[in-house]
Amino acid sequence: MSDHQLTVDDLCINTLRTLAMDAVQAANSGHPGAPMGLAPAAYVLWTKHLKHNPKNSSWPDRDRFVLSGGHGSMLLYGLLHLTGYGLTLDDLKNFRQWESKTPGHPEYGHTNGVEVTTGPLGQGIANAVGMAMAERHLAATYNTDAHTIVDHRTYVMCGDGDLMEGVALEAISMAGHMGLGKLTCLYDANDITIEGGTGIAFTEDVAKKFEACGWETITLENGNDHNAIDAAITSAKAQDEKPTLILMKTTIAYGSPNKAGTSGAHGAPLGEKEILLTKKNLGWPSEEPFFVPEEAKEVFGASIEKGQAAEDAWQEKFNAYAKAEPKLTNQWVDGVSGFLTFGWDKEIPTYTPEDGNIATRKASGQVLNAIAPNLPGLVGGSADLAPSNNTFMACSHEFQKESYDGRNIRFGVREHAMGAVMNGMFVHGGVRPFGGTFLVFADYLRPSIRVASLMKLPIIYVFTHDSIAVGEDGPTHQPVEHVAALRAIPGLTVLRPGCASETADAWRVALKITDGPTAIILSRQGLPVSDRSKAEGSVPSGGYILKDTEGTPDAILMASGSEVHITVEAAEKLAEKGVKARVVSMPSWELFEMNQENYKDWVLLPEVKTRVAVEAGISMGWEKYVGDKGTVISMEGFGASAPGGTLLKEFGFTSDNIVEKTLELIEANK
Amino acid sequence: MSDHQLTVDDLCINTLRTLAMDAVQAANSGHPGAPMGLAPAAYVLWTKHLKHNPKNSSWPDRDRFVLSGGHGSMLLYGLLHLTGYGLTLDDLKNFRQWESKTPGHPEYGHTNGVEVTTGPLGQGIANAVGMAMAERHLAATYNTDAHTIVDHRTYVMCGDGDLMEGVALEAISMAGHMGLGKLTCLYDANDITIEGGTGIAFTEDVAKKFEACGWETITLENGNDHNAIDAAITSAKAQDEKPTLILMKTTIAYGSPNKAGTSGAHGAPLGEKEILLTKKNLGWPSEEPFFVPEEAKEVFGASIEKGQAAEDAWQEKFNAYAKAEPKLTNQWVDGVSGFLTFGWDKEIPTYTPEDGNIATRKASGQVLNAIAPNLPGLVGGSADLAPSNNTFMACSHEFQKESYDGRNIRFGVREHAMGAVMNGMFVHGGVRPFGGTFLVFADYLRPSIRVASLMKLPIIYVFTHDSIAVGEDGPTHQPVEHVAALRAIPGLTVLRPGCASETADAWRVALKITDGPTAIILSRQGLPVSDRSKAEGSVPSGGYILKDTEGTPDAILMASGSEVHITVEAAEKLAEKGVKARVVSMPSWELFEMNQENYKDWVLLPEVKTRVAVEAGISMGWEKYVGDKGTVISMEGFGASAPGGTLLKEFGFTSDNIVEKTLELIEANK
Repeated sequence: MSDHQLTVDDLCINTLRTLAMDAVQAANSGHPGAPMGLAPAAYVLWTKHLKHNPKNSSWPDRDRFVLSGGHGSMLLYGLLHLTGYGLTLDDLKNFRQWESKTPGHPEYGHTNGVEVTTGPLGQGIANAVGMAMAERHLAATYNTDAHTIVDHRTYVMCGDGDLMEGVALEAISMAGHMGLGKLTCLYDANDITIEGGTGIAFTEDVAKKFEACGWETITLENGNDHNAIDAAITSAKAQDEKPTLILMKTTIAYGSPNKAGTSGAHGAPLGEKEILLTKKNLGWPSEEPFFVPEEAKEVFGASIEKGQAAEDAWQEKFNAYAKAEPKLTNQWVDGVSGFLTFGWDKEIPTYTPEDGNIATRKASGQVLNAIAPNLPGLVGGSADLAPSNNTFMACSHEFQKESYDGRNIRFGVREHAMGAVMNGMFVHGGVRPFGGTFLVFADYLRPSIRVASLMKLPIIYVFTHDSIAVGEDGPTHQPVEHVAALRAIPGLTVLRPGCASETADAWRVALKITDGPTAIILSRQGLPVSDRSKAEGSVPSGGYILKDTEGTPDAILMASGSEVHITVEAAEKLAEKGVKARVVSMPSWELFEMNQENYKDWVLLPEVKTRVAVEAGISMGWEKYVGDKGTVISMEGFGASAPGGTLLKEFGFTSDNIVEKTLELIEANK
Repeated sequence: MSDHQLTVDDLCINTLRTLAMDAVQAANSGHPGAPMGLAPAAYVLWTKHLKHNPKNSSWPDRDRFVLSGGHGSMLLYGLLHLTGYGLTLDDLKNFRQWESKTPGHPEYGHTNGVEVTTGPLGQGIANAVGMAMAERHLAATYNTDAHTIVDHRTYVMCGDGDLMEGVALEAISMAGHMGLGKLTCLYDANDITIEGGTGIAFTEDVAKKFEACGWETITLENGNDHNAIDAAITSAKAQDEKPTLILMKTTIAYGSPNKAGTSGAHGAPLGEKEILLTKKNLGWPSEEPFFVPEEAKEVFGASIEKGQAAEDAWQEKFNAYAKAEPKLTNQWVDGVSGFLTFGWDKEIPTYTPEDGNIATRKASGQVLNAIAPNLPGLVGGSADLAPSNNTFMACSHEFQKESYDGRNIRFGVREHAMGAVMNGMFVHGGVRPFGGTFLVFADYLRPSIRVASLMKLPIIYVFTHDSIAVGEDGPTHQPVEHVAALRAIPGLTVLRPGCASETADAWRVALKITDGPTAIILSRQGLPVSDRSKAEGSVPSGGYILKDTEGTPDAILMASGSEVHITVEAAEKLAEKGVKARVVSMPSWELFEMNQENYKDWVLLPEVKTRVAVEAGISMGWEKYVGDKGTVISMEGFGASAPGGTLLKEFGFTSDNIVEKTLELIEANK
């Protein structure tokens, strides 16, 4: 290689490679291999195809770019630096250091130009599918015959590891079904994983698999041939009916004389010596780390002017649109900014004890359907459980390739992809996604919930069938540990309303939270509506006095969800026995913790040590609220298959048992 | 249909259908549709192909049968009843009732003949892959040129929902790669899911997808043609190089005049009236519920004699084998019975403080490699992180289609399939599986961990890189909530050893636990080996006094894992200040809870209220041990990307901070 005069293309491509090598070396940590293999594709995509404006990374009609293999972050940082996103050479030199702009994996909201946090493999592909879905939805919703204000593409780069992950495989199937023609996946087929060659574990025909899922595929035998990549992307852009896979046979750590094509180049610095050898091998003009040739600066730097011109042209179109379609424009502004449309909550029903028993999942469906017509940005669905989760919005129709304006998404039995797709839809902008499944299957999408929490995305999860009261389906379908496990995720708000009335409040709160996801936990079974007429405090406080007693209570009973009403019943029975019990409804620990200490003490009187918590789930964490002298009526093992009512009785979730345990505790604490 | 004389085949098939209808109706809950559609395939498989002995459901060389769509449990219960597994008609009449033998979803260990607990979709397919892997492994390990004692097949029935789940898609890819010729998947392509026709979400070419993954495929346009099914299974049995998919186009609730082919027949009783109409439509000889024709009894009942003869023939072969191969036979007996081979732990190394700093993941690799040569039933691997998890056993080679006797499994980047495959391997019998990944990715396989816990399977998870000390990879790779979330799963033992010495004990304990899974949580970073020479108690107790003080301590400090050594350091610094602190190492809450109260009180002196817990994860649950006057030094949010040492310091995991917090607490509690 070094014998030839380097073209400008080569210089640009090798700039991406050398920056990656040098930054990983400086950090003494990181992944040089993928950026070096992917540099030609990244160069071609970012300089010749990607529609973006480095000076405004939130331009709504920009193309989206996802680096699914987030460990290749230096590729993205190199691109952001070179094309003008404000990431400096010093930032690159601080790769992976405390408080730097260049963390080990790209982080949304932390580094300008990063569209989504990636790293956990497979997620990025599903995020990209969500972005492409959001684009199609907004295009179908807002574009008119005369005006096109939404028209952009989504590109995702992924590696072998991504394509082994179930979440990606689910999303690939969805994308094909939905005919997402504006989605392109650039697959870095370098045949290397951490344990060795892909031959040891991954020998399927990837292109054929994508074709079976309804994708167009293009295979490039030489992933270094930037002209071929250019032609392939051009071809993908011409295919509007199906998503396109561009399978590029690449070489990990391309250019490194001793490490190219080996697992050793995946996740460790090449070493000073090998870097010099590589630079020599690539015909690189300088030995100096972080050297960027003027030619490369110029080529990449042209993105700024090009991007500004593109956005200006779009802005002109948008101005004309705004004039012609003021109503749609208002709606667009709300959607893109995340504002809750004025009057969004005006039709939320009020529930009273006279309404009789209502399952909170049913109330949730009613509330959702009361909100949906007034909040057009709300889109969502269920992982094939819409009739059980009550997630269908009657005011709209299905999102399908013939009807992208539909707001009801059929995720299929793909909980994990649902989670990651929602993340992609939200970061795309313009929509507020929700998704439902049974609470027990929250485990299936947990990795996506975690990333949503990390990214602070206000996704709403509708988890129904929330305890052993699920009944006959048995322990495989009965969540026991899930409420606790969700509470464990930092930044996720868990709301387990106790009745229809609290469910209405739960949706109100969930939609108002803008800095993190919310899980609404709902019952399968009917529950009486709490009499909240004398309640002090309310759902947004997380915990409040639902039923009080005169003077200092003998005991504080606390519960969430379907256990609230039996706890109230227990308090009434205790009153008959002359025992004064306060009932605290605790729909959300996270919200409760946000209160000042004096509110918390006002609700959970520090002087009252006899405290009983009731929750048809594990006790873990309730110790914090019941204290040393309290007790928890909980499930400490799995449930069983039988009618829900039988199980609640057998496992002790009755007012009589609460009474008994409370009396015992009062006695013990004397 | 009713005009024709029913053949015996029809009678048998319709017996399965009517039993399912009737049981679901009696329970007023359940899923009649799938059993009715799958009845022909189930009949053909169980009466003409499946090698099984109803009188000995644990015959090691039986064929394995998995009903991946566990909601169709009545199909399996019908088969178990009819073929003689001891499930009575009364059991069927008690379908889904408290303490019945016929829970809503099939439960391993609860109902004789149920090979594995299914219900959470997709798991069963991966379980079957694990079973087929175990069979190939045992065959390659134990069969000799002269003797074949392992030679059986695995059949899995699945539906559309299963094939949308990522875990299944991962496992399908694995099975093809491994060339599992003795695995057959019977796919109930009824084109119906809960939300409607599969057309709304699932339109891929399933057969082509399997082919891309290296499977043979057979498509049957008429899933009711039992002769065609018979021929297809015969053909699958002749294909030994590749697993086979038999795609059967079926009709959900076949026979029901008004509900066949509709979503309504999936998960609800057909109704008394529709059942009568269906029976009429099927030409059924009786209106009486749970009627079984004599002809059907006879045909299915023949399984007993046939099965006993088959096992007898095998036993003869085994006797000859035992004579010829006494050493292998001993090993076989250990493996199949789950005994720990005599001397299995004799080479486990001893660690002392003089060994310097050792990462517990590194110690774990050493311990594993000390055990592996002496415990031949131990098989396992990692989800493409073997060099990081240190899970490779040097005494063996890779499990691959050319070398099924290898004990090192290359799971690929497929954490979820790894989890479910291990479950399948264990329930198959003969092997003791373990699998590794980064702790943060425990979320990816969580649904499989849950089912392992529910089934009480002693799977071992090796979760390394266990806190923010992961460092530069940043928050996507830093577990914060995972230790707590794993502790939340009932029946799972979580072990977080504090040093190399505790790691050796952790493996000892994990292998001795036979009634549930164990997660061993390990550090990326080097840790000093604790001086346990003066310790009272040890790892099997879950929590023990690692370092004590004279008289009643002023404070009890407790910690797990990598925080133990800084806590010991803090106690030493406190001693210099005249503060007496006891240090309790708490590698496992679950084991600690198994102790009697007096041991627990001896360790955590009830009279000492000043208690500090230190764990580089969330505090949830520690309240139980620190009590009302204690505190927890923990992580309550996500980590960051920086060198691990920097992060530990920035987030307060230093002995100085422990000292400070302890002194503050002593002051506050005065």
